[in-house]
Amino acid sequence: MNLPPRRLTSQLDVTISQPADIVFSVAVAATYTPAEEVLTMHLDGQPIDFHEISTNSGTRLHRVSKLPAGKLRVSYSALVDSPSLGMVEGEDQEIIYGRPSRYCDSDRLGQVAWTHFHQVPRADLVQAIRNWVNQKISYTPGSSRVVDGALETYLSRKGVCRDMAHLVITFCRAMNIPARLVSVYAPGLKPMDFHAVAEVYFDGGWHLVDATGLAPRQTMVRIATGRDASDTAFMTTMSGLTTLDRMSVTAIVEGDLPTDDAVVPVSLG
Amino acid sequence: MNLPPRRLTSQLDVTISQPADIVFSVAVAATYTPAEEVLTMHLDGQPIDFHEISTNSGTRLHRVSKLPAGKLRVSYSALVDSPSLGMVEGEDQEIIYGRPSRYCDSDRLGQVAWTHFHQVPRADLVQAIRNWVNQKISYTPGSSRVVDGALETYLSRKGVCRDMAHLVITFCRAMNIPARLVSVYAPGLKPMDFHAVAEVYFDGGWHLVDATGLAPRQTMVRIATGRDASDTAFMTTMSGLTTLDRMSVTAIVEGDLPTDDAVVPVSLG
Amino acid sequence: MNLPPRRLTSQLDVTISQPADIVFSVAVAATYTPAEEVLTMHLDGQPIDFHEISTNSGTRLHRVSKLPAGKLRVSYSALVDSPSLGMVEGEDQEIIYGRPSRYCDSDRLGQVAWTHFHQVPRADLVQAIRNWVNQKISYTPGSSRVVDGALETYLSRKGVCRDMAHLVITFCRAMNIPARLVSVYAPGLKPMDFHAVAEVYFDGGWHLVDATGLAPRQTMVRIATGRDASDTAFMTTMSGLTTLDRMSVTAIVEGDLPTDDAVVPVSLG
Amino acid sequence: MNLPPRRLTSQLDVTISQPADIVFSVAVAATYTPAEEVLTMHLDGQPIDFHEISTNSGTRLHRVSKLPAGKLRVSYSALVDSPSLGMVEGEDQEIIYGRPSRYCDSDRLGQVAWTHFHQVPRADLVQAIRNWVNQKISYTPGSSRVVDGALETYLSRKGVCRDMAHLVITFCRAMNIPARLVSVYAPGLKPMDFHAVAEVYFDGGWHLVDATGLAPRQTMVRIATGRDASDTAFMTTMSGLTTLDRMSVTAIVEGDLPTDDAVVPVSLG
Repeated sequence: MNLPPRRLTSQLDVTISQPADIVFSVAVAATYTPAEEVLTMHLDGQPIDFHEISTNSGTRLHRVSKLPAGKLRVSYSALVDSPSLGMVEGEDQEIIYGRPSRYCDSDRLGQVAWTHFHQVPRADLVQAIRNWVNQKISYTPGSSRVVDGALETYLSRKGVCRDMAHLVITFCRAMNIPARLVSVYAPGLKPMDFHAVAEVYFDGGWHLVDATGLAPRQTMVRIATGRDASDTAFMTTMSGLTTLDRMSVTAIVEGDLPTDDAVVPVSLG
Repeated sequence: MNLPPRRLTSQLDVTISQPADIVFSVAVAATYTPAEEVLTMHLDGQPIDFHEISTNSGTRLHRVSKLPAGKLRVSYSALVDSPSLGMVEGEDQEIIYGRPSRYCDSDRLGQVAWTHFHQVPRADLVQAIRNWVNQKISYTPGSSRVVDGALETYLSRKGVCRDMAHLVITFCRAMNIPARLVSVYAPGLKPMDFHAVAEVYFDGGWHLVDATGLAPRQTMVRIATGRDASDTAFMTTMSGLTTLDRMSVTAIVEGDLPTDDAVVPVSLG
Repeated sequence: MNLPPRRLTSQLDVTISQPADIVFSVAVAATYTPAEEVLTMHLDGQPIDFHEISTNSGTRLHRVSKLPAGKLRVSYSALVDSPSLGMVEGEDQEIIYGRPSRYCDSDRLGQVAWTHFHQVPRADLVQAIRNWVNQKISYTPGSSRVVDGALETYLSRKGVCRDMAHLVITFCRAMNIPARLVSVYAPGLKPMDFHAVAEVYFDGGWHLVDATGLAPRQTMVRIATGRDASDTAFMTTMSGLTTLDRMSVTAIVEGDLPTDDAVVPVSLG
Repeated sequence: MNLPPRRLTSQLDVTISQPADIVFSVAVAATYTPAEEVLTMHLDGQPIDFHEISTNSGTRLHRVSKLPAGKLRVSYSALVDSPSLGMVEGEDQEIIYGRPSRYCDSDRLGQVAWTHFHQVPRADLVQAIRNWVNQKISYTPGSSRVVDGALETYLSRKGVCRDMAHLVITFCRAMNIPARLVSVYAPGLKPMDFHAVAEVYFDGGWHLVDATGLAPRQTMVRIATGRDASDTAFMTTMSGLTTLDRMSVTAIVEGDLPTDDAVVPVSLG
């Protein structure tokens, strides 16, 4: 597929109240080779150093340590005009992403998944799970808490993109289908923000499943990949005391957004 | 340290009721070079093929696929007479093992950890956590369920080695100390079984913390390493229907068992 | 209906380690007029005083206060040969027993109940709920904990009489049908013990629903009535330290046990 | 004590979308004899009939049944100028309000309560519990959900009046002190709303405990009394489909508000 160039930016304003050690996850994954890419951090207006940490999942983390109190601004921009290389995936990935995780408690929801989906033919399972979550879970900003897992979403029938992705992942794992969470830049998302979608393994590859249907999958750009939201937070305070004051995200494609037909498998380009 | 040779065996008898795909995690970690090592699998008395999957955490998984119904026996034996090489650890390991996980819900128990430990000097924190779990959690076989996480253990004050290790890990992470779970062969453990202990990062290295005090840490031999018990199960049925009928584990050192002083840091040898 | 006489006994042996205040609920409800009834308590072999507390639900509680350390034996026997008078029920009962309670968290399980039962005609609802619990929940001694509520039973699909009754009650309430828990003497139960069943309000009266099917409902004899097991414990230590050492229960009808057809409504006689 | 007259009003606007059966709990408890009291209900502007249901707890419920779709307005006003008669309390009340309940899961939080309060002398226990909740739980509108119980409040350290009262009650019960929830009109509360406080049994009587400190206890007027918020909802839809569109509450004393010293026991007047 011929993907249009995607121009991405994010900016975080953070107040450091006590000397802090922070990890950011806002840059596109290591599988891309952006035509342009700039990441800067400033403390009280002065540029500061940070360093990049590579991970086995292709997620690029950027860490600042021993930051004194002050106002931190993190600015990222990238132009992605070529498709992603495939992720390097060992056979263990298929096993690891089948396990229950913090917010995808597939072990507790095993019987529930079975009840809903055991009569669905294997080939239709992922689509059936996507549709169930799309239809039964009401997308409701403010309805969930960061400690909530898939069980809460299942019981309350409410959540945001993260919760809906967690439930998709949980049902997939409970039905023995490996699945994981991906944070993305998502052109077309309204209101614009970081987005979270499920990535599910079938037919020999990983495919995006977005039960929210809020943005076309084809033009999403991968940031972090992991078991669930515990692995994909855009900001993690390792020590110290911080407050996120403001955040802005943009993701734009040149030309028209593609049309996304939810029944067609899409892999991250 | 001069470690005595350790002779390890495990044997699992499994009934396959419906064609199954199973992953075993009973072999010592990839960081060892055992003087002798034999792993065999037999189905209804006939030897069968399996293959090994390496993982980033050094855990060696052994997988059998499309196994027809029958009686499966898995037999493992090893003689470990040299110390383990260090694990290859990226800086991301320290970050990843600081995150909440399925059975170590450090995000929910953050305030609880703070209440118990915020007055403890940093240098004494791991020991204080170990002692708290050792003294407050009653080692009680049969008291916990496989879906239980650290919150349940904290509330009920009961559990087995796995639960006590999960609570140690959870408290550590809540206090910003990376921690993970290790399944081990543990000479001296009574009754003999697979054992689970916490491994905690401080002073630039990973150290074993065993709140049960049931076996000396020095002579333990690492099997699997992961975020919690979701990563270290000795047997995972990926598909099909299986029943574990019988399991036996042995772990013997030549000569006397070392004495383990709980206040001295020990790394896995 | 002509009910056969029922002969009931229970005996509890309790060690008092620290001076205690205990409430027992082993006597038949206030709606019966037993032909014979004896309740005695002995501490270290000497008879001791206790007093009876009446409750609005017809449950008779027997309380001993300021009991010194020692061995307490509670012995109860009764011969019930006439049917129960109806309970005195205000309109508020129907409202109160529609509310969520400690172990019947019908508010959390509302969507789940709706999923399973919204297509069932109103007249068949209670029977459908009874059958679902009977078929899907595996009666498994030792599988549940005293702090477990209906959500745990729903997820694990395992439990004992108390858990199955809690789930029946929870589903009923979630479908706007008042329901409560009754502890009973149950002739025919094997192994003999105190039994717990749901009592559900429909067609203008309260009817027994026993998803375990372990004993005929007609000859059960009511002990305590309440929202859930928090109201029907046979022994509650209000203060002090006690251990239940031994308990025996018998419940015998003269002649044959009646046959219980689960589809026929039965009220407690 | 000489209490000033209190003038109370509440008004609820409810849309009935499907024929409904609703119970309201907005009138002062049966222990008062208001100088003036008016309760009216109008559907689409026309007065409609309702009836009052008395309960053993003194709570007065007002029920409308088979209400067709339309706009319902419930208006209540009362002038309370004489003190409340005491509640009629059997000895069973002390027992019943010692039990765990839906949102006061004192059985799960038993060890936690013990940890925090076992060293506090009995006479100071209620005050210590009140202070702990007052200091550790941040009053945060919007932070909790209606299905949350005391465990959630304990873990998140956030909540509203209902949550703080639930935690006070739970800790009291766990320390063997009977406690219950009371909904009240609370002159001086800002912003004005229905309020919820704990009522705790000690020194032979029931006393108000309000960990929020948001209004003086002396001039509060009791509405409903129960185990927790499951018993005190101001509106319960028994069947049908309803939406609460608007609610307003006022509670005014003539003259100055009394000063409330949190360390002095206060009973509801």
